[in-house]
Amino acid sequence: MATIKVPQVVPSPAEDADALLKAFQGWGTDEQAVIAVLAQRDAAQRKLIRLAYEQNYNEGLIQRLQSELSGDFERAVYHWMLDPVERQAVMANAATKRIHEDYPVIVEIACANSPSELLAVKQAYHGLYRRSLEEDVAARATGNLRSLLLALVSTYRYDGDEVDDALAQSEAKIIRESVADGATRHGELIRIVGTRSRAQLRATFSWFRDEHSTSITKALPRGADPTGYSHALRSAVRCMADADKYFVKVLRNAMHKSGTDEESLTRVIVMHAEKDLKGIKDKFKKRASVALEQAIARDTSGDYKSFLMALVGSGMI
Amino acid sequence: MATIKVPQVVPSPAEDADALLKAFQGWGTDEQAVIAVLAQRDAAQRKLIRLAYEQNYNEGLIQRLQSELSGDFERAVYHWMLDPVERQAVMANAATKRIHEDYPVIVEIACANSPSELLAVKQAYHGLYRRSLEEDVAARATGNLRSLLLALVSTYRYDGDEVDDALAQSEAKIIRESVADGATRHGELIRIVGTRSRAQLRATFSWFRDEHSTSITKALPRGADPTGYSHALRSAVRCMADADKYFVKVLRNAMHKSGTDEESLTRVIVMHAEKDLKGIKDKFKKRASVALEQAIARDTSGDYKSFLMALVGSGMI
Repeated sequence: MATIKVPQVVPSPAEDADALLKAFQGWGTDEQAVIAVLAQRDAAQRKLIRLAYEQNYNEGLIQRLQSELSGDFERAVYHWMLDPVERQAVMANAATKRIHEDYPVIVEIACANSPSELLAVKQAYHGLYRRSLEEDVAARATGNLRSLLLALVSTYRYDGDEVDDALAQSEAKIIRESVADGATRHGELIRIVGTRSRAQLRATFSWFRDEHSTSITKALPRGADPTGYSHALRSAVRCMADADKYFVKVLRNAMHKSGTDEESLTRVIVMHAEKDLKGIKDKFKKRASVALEQAIARDTSGDYKSFLMALVGSGMI
Repeated sequence: MATIKVPQVVPSPAEDADALLKAFQGWGTDEQAVIAVLAQRDAAQRKLIRLAYEQNYNEGLIQRLQSELSGDFERAVYHWMLDPVERQAVMANAATKRIHEDYPVIVEIACANSPSELLAVKQAYHGLYRRSLEEDVAARATGNLRSLLLALVSTYRYDGDEVDDALAQSEAKIIRESVADGATRHGELIRIVGTRSRAQLRATFSWFRDEHSTSITKALPRGADPTGYSHALRSAVRCMADADKYFVKVLRNAMHKSGTDEESLTRVIVMHAEKDLKGIKDKFKKRASVALEQAIARDTSGDYKSFLMALVGSGMI
């Protein structure tokens, strides 16, 4: 469920566009007015506002926002204004350019979406970049990281609930052997995580836990791995097993004592605010013993804070 | 272009169903009557005949055909009666079960189809088998053959005509280095063949030919390879470069002096008769200096021969 709060009576796109123009004019920008409009409109409404603005004032709304706003706030609003599917294609493309740091973006897009949602992102990618996400991932990652990410973004997974229990049992054993082997023989592990359906993987992970009294993520190798492969593998396993729980972990890591990771924080909030952030928020509260709004309020400031608060539906804007 | 000859005035599905029932009744089956109906109807018409037959006579038409016919003829008619997309899913599934012999079926489905056609086959596969083609390929192939086939069936390739010439040049060089290295370091080669668009691959192959005065297929390693990987790689390269030419080669090999490979012959004719067999036929005549009809007439006999002749549009049925 979404967390954004769309008012019951919504102004027309032309009225919203006018409110934005007013916010841009005069001394400085009225950021609160920008947030009051854009954070409380869904994707279809934002698109209409963009069109109305561009038609009435003869300039691109996104470009104007980029010139009026700055810093983390600007980047968050920029991503928020993109169409949700195109946004993921844009983020995936940016991630392929720094793939050994930004692989979590690829893992999330490949593993948190349904197979048909992932397909839509790949189709948008073709349209925007005249290339496939697969070829960009394959060309820029190396070694096990490449094998893993390529399988994750390529496979059109089966999306049904059917589970083959004997297969789950035998593949839990294969995973155990791969893990015992260290990072040297991960082909089978990558094959399983990269191609099996979400339901089948959950059954396999569950067998593993029953047999070995520990979760796969705990059993997977940790430690120094400059390629990011080990971390990407753990992220993929977590994201396939329970995407909400995975995102709670990303949010908690992003708001850690050692400093705030605004990029990850923005990404999770913007990508999920009108999709499934409600569930993530509920789980966050249970795990962190503090509400997501409180954590965000503590770790951020200014317009960036106001904007995120509006997206998580706190009402405090 | 298709080669089957659908009459200008087509009987109603009920009339065709009736003609088939009559062909099944009495002493022996009237195979020529079966061919006269089924080989001269397109996929949509065959589907309606199936429905009319099942509704009017309370038995499955395909099952009845399987019990009335036999041998290569029966297998050809069985595949011909399936919906073209489902047929490919059925053939791909059968091929995954004998993947070290039947990998050419997988290569053809992955490389001769457009990206959206391949996607449709994968969607049909989900529906029929409650699994993905990817997971079955990955679970049953091994080593380089697995890496290659998995990339071929997984990637949702870009389908446009844009070509990056600098990239084609640099990847032609990478291929050269991979080939020089023997079969030991084929990761980059598999990445390129497995993820780049058809247009991009053609440009890369063309650079390779210009630089090295030989085609990639000639430069690729040959010889004993029990996994089938080397042959699968050459097939994929050929099929991406020029699918018609590739199928001409498959047909010529299938009708070789040393004996007829009915399985391959049937597959190519049945899968392409109502799609692009006309182009394959024209190229066959140029390369083999004999018409495809003549080659088939020489290598086959009986009802199987009559059926194939009708599918290639020879009129001699």
